[in-house]
Amino acid sequence: MTRLIVCLFCLLSFTVAAQQPDYVLLIHGGAGSLTPKNTPPERQEAYRAAMSKALDAGAAILEKGGTATDAVMAAIMVMEDDSLFNAGRGAVFTNEGKNELDASIMDGSNLEAGAVAGVTTIKNPITAARAVMDKSPHVMMAGPGAEKFAEANGCTIVDPSYFRTEKAWRSLQGVQKREAEKELKDKKSMLRQPENRDEKYGTVGAVALDKQGNLAAGTSTGGMTNKRFGRIGDSPIIGAGTYADNNSCAVSCTGWGEYFIRLGIAKSIADRVELKGMPLADAVKEMIHDKLPAFGGDGGVIAVDNKGNISVEFNTPGMNRAYITSGGKKVIEMFK
Amino acid sequence: MTRLIVCLFCLLSFTVAAQQPDYVLLIHGGAGSLTPKNTPPERQEAYRAAMSKALDAGAAILEKGGTATDAVMAAIMVMEDDSLFNAGRGAVFTNEGKNELDASIMDGSNLEAGAVAGVTTIKNPITAARAVMDKSPHVMMAGPGAEKFAEANGCTIVDPSYFRTEKAWRSLQGVQKREAEKELKDKKSMLRQPENRDEKYGTVGAVALDKQGNLAAGTSTGGMTNKRFGRIGDSPIIGAGTYADNNSCAVSCTGWGEYFIRLGIAKSIADRVELKGMPLADAVKEMIHDKLPAFGGDGGVIAVDNKGNISVEFNTPGMNRAYITSGGKKVIEMFK
Repeated sequence: MTRLIVCLFCLLSFTVAAQQPDYVLLIHGGAGSLTPKNTPPERQEAYRAAMSKALDAGAAILEKGGTATDAVMAAIMVMEDDSLFNAGRGAVFTNEGKNELDASIMDGSNLEAGAVAGVTTIKNPITAARAVMDKSPHVMMAGPGAEKFAEANGCTIVDPSYFRTEKAWRSLQGVQKREAEKELKDKKSMLRQPENRDEKYGTVGAVALDKQGNLAAGTSTGGMTNKRFGRIGDSPIIGAGTYADNNSCAVSCTGWGEYFIRLGIAKSIADRVELKGMPLADAVKEMIHDKLPAFGGDGGVIAVDNKGNISVEFNTPGMNRAYITSGGKKVIEMFK
Repeated sequence: MTRLIVCLFCLLSFTVAAQQPDYVLLIHGGAGSLTPKNTPPERQEAYRAAMSKALDAGAAILEKGGTATDAVMAAIMVMEDDSLFNAGRGAVFTNEGKNELDASIMDGSNLEAGAVAGVTTIKNPITAARAVMDKSPHVMMAGPGAEKFAEANGCTIVDPSYFRTEKAWRSLQGVQKREAEKELKDKKSMLRQPENRDEKYGTVGAVALDKQGNLAAGTSTGGMTNKRFGRIGDSPIIGAGTYADNNSCAVSCTGWGEYFIRLGIAKSIADRVELKGMPLADAVKEMIHDKLPAFGGDGGVIAVDNKGNISVEFNTPGMNRAYITSGGKKVIEMFK
């Protein structure tokens, strides 16, 4: 019954590639409550233009024979720079009025990975995740230590005010006002209030298959409006929000992070493909339309397998997503 | 060939339970270079006594029909309180001379999970992970925010000096001296120096099956000596260092954290059991003696499945581990 209800909000947006393309780049700009009704045409146009620009940045690399990892990073940087998305500039605010950013990246050819959590001064957190992967023996760094490392390794540092947008600030005021009014003492159920959902999503991510047949995935986010206590969501967690393995697929997630961590969504999809031999689309569908809602979570996933098949699923009303292939096909979607 | 060499250092320490026990508690106190030669008898005795005490604390709960989650927490608290282990008191020092602690816990009956990373004032980090799981809508919290939350939710707060031991401090001095002498500029390969290995391990963990048939897992650590830049290892990462799911098994890991994150070792084992129907022992063996060394990593795993079968594997010379079952059987081991 649960599954039936959930299916009213779901769709498979992109069909599986008919022939194996030379390369594929698939991106998302967050799953949430976007509908044609609540998204003015000029805002829809802005989302489409931003996603198109992100695809172009990544495809330029893939076209020249560059790596999936480079393409994923380039596409995500475009979206981090665009204040439309909840990543980099435009990130949502914490309870304390800060922008704390998380990002991760993974190279499916060697399972190298890098992630940063809770950083406040790195212009493009995905570049810091990349630096952790390439230039340190570590996979994950957090807070001021991560910022120190990023600065020492060439990442652009900005004043925290760079990330501020009025929209995100108003969103924080709104959530805090509603919380105060409702006196939501039960922190455990607080996030389950429907009015908190809109502000939670907007994470960006990318997955790619390059001409050499290598996969990569990356995710970047500002987390959730009004987050407290140094909360870390799924985006910087390898296996939860991001995973890539040439043996199976590359996955980037968006949505209610806690559920993605508990279910290890990205790794669960990769393991279904690798261990069970499931087609990518079936693996993604099972996690997003069966497992995730069974626990009460929502969100979406983009994934590409090592044959260039792509899959996008979400159980929210909308999800910004787009892809481009070596055949020149470019598709940009926002709604069901 | 690699596999052959690795196998010289490996063993299956505990055999699979012949009959399904009412409950099982299995703990570890880190995998590393412990051998009978380099571990004086009095130190061996201290390790055995500490592990025995941890088993007793958890078994008392399980015997009375308590939950696997409570038993896991109780066993880990005993080891956190004991300065022999690299968790809680006795944790290793960071590059900046601090003790930064990580812990996580997961309840296999409902996939609820909690984790803290980089905390410096919480006496028992596993209790903070438990508070995150039980009393917040989040799964993971880091740094000062996590400490604030833990304090507000009844965890015992101590001065950071509480965690300091002379042994851990000397270990930091030794590592820093060797680094300075060798001028190890290449940070990427720095950790691959053999002399850094001894200081890295000593994480503690526990997995349990209770009389109700529920599984739980938990892990707690001080991370690695001389760690920098807010490094987070696998211990607080759900799916990497800790995972529990009644559909498969409960897993706690120890070792070279970065490899455990990249391979998502805990989730990989659970998925092998659930999706591929592999016996627990085979799943653990594949990850520890095949996948992990193939990437150059080392460490160990303890796991129990939903039928009470247990498995312990490590590719290091030694691993502190012990278990107790409802049959009253208590086994404590340290070496190959």
